Amino acid sequence: MILSQKIKIALIQFKSSNPSKQLNLQNAQKFIEKAMKTQPDTKLIVLPECFNSPYSITKFKEYAEPIIATDLSQSPTCTFLSKLASRFQIILIGGSIPECDPTTSKIYNTSIIFNEQGHLIAKHRKIHLFDIDIPNGITFKESTTLSPGSQPTTFSTKYGQIGLGICYDLRFPELAMIAARKGAFAMVYPGAFNTVTGPMHWHLLARSRAIDNENYVVLCSPARNLESDYHAYGHSLVVDPRGNIIAEAGEDEEIVFAELDPSVIEQFRKQVPITFQRRFDVYPDVSK
Amino acid sequence: MILSQKIKIALIQFKSSNPSKQLNLQNAQKFIEKAMKTQPDTKLIVLPECFNSPYSITKFKEYAEPIIATDLSQSPTCTFLSKLASRFQIILIGGSIPECDPTTSKIYNTSIIFNEQGHLIAKHRKIHLFDIDIPNGITFKESTTLSPGSQPTTFSTKYGQIGLGICYDLRFPELAMIAARKGAFAMVYPGAFNTVTGPMHWHLLARSRAIDNENYVVLCSPARNLESDYHAYGHSLVVDPRGNIIAEAGEDEEIVFAELDPSVIEQFRKQVPITFQRRFDVYPDVSK
Repeated sequence: MILSQKIKIALIQFKSSNPSKQLNLQNAQKFIEKAMKTQPDTKLIVLPECFNSPYSITKFKEYAEPIIATDLSQSPTCTFLSKLASRFQIILIGGSIPECDPTTSKIYNTSIIFNEQGHLIAKHRKIHLFDIDIPNGITFKESTTLSPGSQPTTFSTKYGQIGLGICYDLRFPELAMIAARKGAFAMVYPGAFNTVTGPMHWHLLARSRAIDNENYVVLCSPARNLESDYHAYGHSLVVDPRGNIIAEAGEDEEIVFAELDPSVIEQFRKQVPITFQRRFDVYPDVSK
Repeated sequence: MILSQKIKIALIQFKSSNPSKQLNLQNAQKFIEKAMKTQPDTKLIVLPECFNSPYSITKFKEYAEPIIATDLSQSPTCTFLSKLASRFQIILIGGSIPECDPTTSKIYNTSIIFNEQGHLIAKHRKIHLFDIDIPNGITFKESTTLSPGSQPTTFSTKYGQIGLGICYDLRFPELAMIAARKGAFAMVYPGAFNTVTGPMHWHLLARSRAIDNENYVVLCSPARNLESDYHAYGHSLVVDPRGNIIAEAGEDEEIVFAELDPSVIEQFRKQVPITFQRRFDVYPDVSK
């Protein structure tokens, strides 16, 4: 069983780029409380990329926190999310935050995942840094101040395995292929595409990762904030294994709810059985 | 240089499923002549999947021909295409035809590619056979009578390298990844999706293969023929490296023209430089 039972999820699309970290955390909490009040059967909540700080290469260091699973108290954001996860007994995918590694002083764009007991069960350091240059569109170079992660991430929940990538990781099909082949039922990407790359490729990439792996794909963006330097695309969404968008936000603050259903995965994988038809005698399996 | 110069291509979407092989060949010729008359600067022409026979598992054997590069005379269809390619001095991607291997008696769904001198420069045996079962939609099992190929295909032209897959091969991202990483400027798929799978995934798969590899993608379908058992989707199309559909047919007989431009590949690969940002230290390169 890839997914053990139906699971209700919520994506928190909020204006998360406030210069006050405390305000960003308070807003996240406000929306999580609202989601749990609106749909109390929600079992998993996703926050956006870089949800506790402005999305800016000059600010990452200032907002970065050490993330140490055995001592969450060193990270105010981890402490905060851990409490919320255990309070509501949910899986909480804490979008991403700037992380500083206390040993190397390197800064990462890192997602932190908590289980229903508030334990940090996984973290993912963004592997593919967002370095692009579209004239009259957008130029951004995360690698100026960030270091890249070097580990694909899947983690176990009581519902099954989930794969995780962050934003630009979405452009590289391998991470979703690896997660799905290791048994994940969903690939989750906290991500902040912008008003140039979003209209071009946000939906296309999400739907493509879904049908190539016959899995759910979840993208959670910040709401668009025209007062910040970086204008996120919004449009947080959930794609089912057939490539259908089953829930989607607009640009503004919004909670997106969706139910992931094991029978949809099973039926489509039976009907179009690519998961059994791959030719690893002809090309290598990237998950091996 | 991935693509050495601009190149005009034409896709021949015609009703190719006539029980008379001779009539299918005559019709192919008629449309090729029309394409060359309409746009004489066309340098490459693509025919649909299974263009010389009905698309039927019970018919493949009857229509199959041996394909031997050193003795094309054993294959009436090869002889026919070779003459057309040299007559018009074009690269001719002969969609696909049922092939019988004289040594093993196995039957394949095989694409044959001729250069401007009429030489057979490559053949691709469909690697992923179309075995699907969608209740109230479509059930088809090519593997009942066909054997699968075991070799990804890229071939050289004077414009650059081209990768090739056939129809259901499109659902498996590896073939396009391999071709692009070996230097191809385009991935060409003669394909006959149907009226169930076509609306679901034809455009999505083509656009996805294009942006993941920042390459042109070309799909060439038969026209829809309601008199045949199998109703092809049509919608032959060309996608540019940004994922934009730059030319597309409807369902009926139609010639689709498009110009492939090296500057579009180069610009987009520079702007969103995924081709240099892949992390083969983190996951294997399927092309190696």
